[in-house]
Amino acid sequence: MDVHSISTKCTRTEFVGTAVLDTIGLVISGVDDTLLKEMNIGTRYHTLGLFSSRTGAAGQITAVDDAVKATGTEVLSIEFPRDTKGWGGHGNYIVIGGNDVSDVRHAISLALELTNKYAGELYISESGHLEFAFSANAGGALSMAFNAVPGEAFGFMAGSPAAIGLVMADTAMKASAVHITRYMTPSIGTSHSNEVILAISGDASAVKEAVLQARQIGLELLIGMGSYPEIPGEPYL
Amino acid sequence: MDVHSISTKCTRTEFVGTAVLDTIGLVISGVDDTLLKEMNIGTRYHTLGLFSSRTGAAGQITAVDDAVKATGTEVLSIEFPRDTKGWGGHGNYIVIGGNDVSDVRHAISLALELTNKYAGELYISESGHLEFAFSANAGGALSMAFNAVPGEAFGFMAGSPAAIGLVMADTAMKASAVHITRYMTPSIGTSHSNEVILAISGDASAVKEAVLQARQIGLELLIGMGSYPEIPGEPYL
Amino acid sequence: MDVHSISTKCTRTEFVGTAVLDTIGLVISGVDDTLLKEMNIGTRYHTLGLFSSRTGAAGQITAVDDAVKATGTEVLSIEFPRDTKGWGGHGNYIVIGGNDVSDVRHAISLALELTNKYAGELYISESGHLEFAFSANAGGALSMAFNAVPGEAFGFMAGSPAAIGLVMADTAMKASAVHITRYMTPSIGTSHSNEVILAISGDASAVKEAVLQARQIGLELLIGMGSYPEIPGEPYL
Repeated sequence: MDVHSISTKCTRTEFVGTAVLDTIGLVISGVDDTLLKEMNIGTRYHTLGLFSSRTGAAGQITAVDDAVKATGTEVLSIEFPRDTKGWGGHGNYIVIGGNDVSDVRHAISLALELTNKYAGELYISESGHLEFAFSANAGGALSMAFNAVPGEAFGFMAGSPAAIGLVMADTAMKASAVHITRYMTPSIGTSHSNEVILAISGDASAVKEAVLQARQIGLELLIGMGSYPEIPGEPYL
Repeated sequence: MDVHSISTKCTRTEFVGTAVLDTIGLVISGVDDTLLKEMNIGTRYHTLGLFSSRTGAAGQITAVDDAVKATGTEVLSIEFPRDTKGWGGHGNYIVIGGNDVSDVRHAISLALELTNKYAGELYISESGHLEFAFSANAGGALSMAFNAVPGEAFGFMAGSPAAIGLVMADTAMKASAVHITRYMTPSIGTSHSNEVILAISGDASAVKEAVLQARQIGLELLIGMGSYPEIPGEPYL
Repeated sequence: MDVHSISTKCTRTEFVGTAVLDTIGLVISGVDDTLLKEMNIGTRYHTLGLFSSRTGAAGQITAVDDAVKATGTEVLSIEFPRDTKGWGGHGNYIVIGGNDVSDVRHAISLALELTNKYAGELYISESGHLEFAFSANAGGALSMAFNAVPGEAFGFMAGSPAAIGLVMADTAMKASAVHITRYMTPSIGTSHSNEVILAISGDASAVKEAVLQARQIGLELLIGMGSYPEIPGEPYL
């Protein structure tokens, strides 16, 4: 097996593209029936779009959320591997379905493009990491992953080591009138990641204010651990 | 967002301090009521102390155990994220409560100080790691985390790759008359860490002898894998 | 504690040897009765063989499978720590039993030797990893771990990020007439690893063809993420 005989420019029809944070987008047209049954995602679609990263979840799910809304496709499953390339958080593994190969391919392509934006609110230092997300109008992906209220604004914050996440959550709740759609800790809801996660819904300006105040105190605490974070994307909030 | 505008000297009232192994100590005074309900740790305290590390659990829990005994505070929850910055073990996330902000702050501050001692029995090599802990007099934290008998001596040993931990456990049980308070493996009780863990209670000299014999064989086996461990703290046993 | 006083040539009777991927093989003769009860693996054997790695599972389980068949020993438990030294996959922790110390030691020794071969189908790049295994004749270890049909050929494929694993699985199912014995994802059956895993049984040439086609597309997709994998062993398929 000489792996160097294989090109880095993948020509398989399954390959759609890649994005930051070891994200890959793929399409399966006419998935094998036996495999589809094992997947336990229903069988109404035989064209599947796959979206998967080593690091980060909320940013990519927000990207998929927008991509699915913009195309005739549907989110079928969202999973949170405990990964992050050695850091304390999650990766993601998302399956979408559609009736038409070109729709599904377009949705995955769009999600890859948007990931380069929405993964911008990730901050990774020697000591830990922070992740934020915001959507003015949550759809099916955010609803499936974090119980977001469809059509309402949605905010997300995760802090690691976990204690930082809880102070961020408390700060967000005190910042404005939002409601909690999901609360996660190493033992509750996560795949044992070293994070406290808060997902919130509500009025767009209230949600954004809560996320921004959480980000400010989260960064102060993380940097207070002694080193500055790297920002693999481009912050957008 | 210019993160370099933030100082590494955190001035937030929530910030208490840091310790080895990416440990941070924080205090929340007057935690948000809605968040407190989600936390599911009871509601009798509104002042919470938070203690959280990327790497290590038993050492830090032993430190919190002593700190809580020395102050008017109580342990409310202990969780084991699967973390260790890419190694095969756990981090920790601990919440304590108290009626008085200065008590809680003092407890967290003391736990940080003691962590620099109790995290001393951590040995990390290229191949795996070992962790040990000993308390002459277990309290609420060790009892909650490892079912330690309050007031009795307590010993802890973890070895990774997991097989080393089992030989350490067998050696400890043959070394002296102690009883098992908790037995953990990748599938039993851990958050899928690559460890076998044994927690023991009993007479102080018996427990210490068991831990020391486990440490000796554990180090011989780990070093037998070909490289010497780094010791991020200062061994105290 | 001066760890440098300990030799890297371990002389403990428990020590059998090591292999690639931080694999260690150990033997306990006359395991402590109280500990044995906690282990919950039955009590008919008091001589235990231990086998444990930081990285990889299918290759080592295939090695143990052959080793157990060649000796008078039996597989008692197989666990999948979420480890891989910071990568997205599993390690392994396997306990075997036998009536005779020399049998058990021989089985572990053989499993270490075979691991250097069977772990050959592991490919780790900056972006993710792939693992493959094949046995012409599955035995007790592969049956316990992946529901392989004893006596039939067995094939295994895992891809990370998880999406790559699903395309490999689909490709394998379309390649030849095999049946699925296990399907695993970050949330189903794994310890939250960032993988889709497919285990298959069937006719030897059909199984091998399915694994080889999965390997080909898996490598094309992984390399399409932008970097070539390292191969810690020697590919054997």
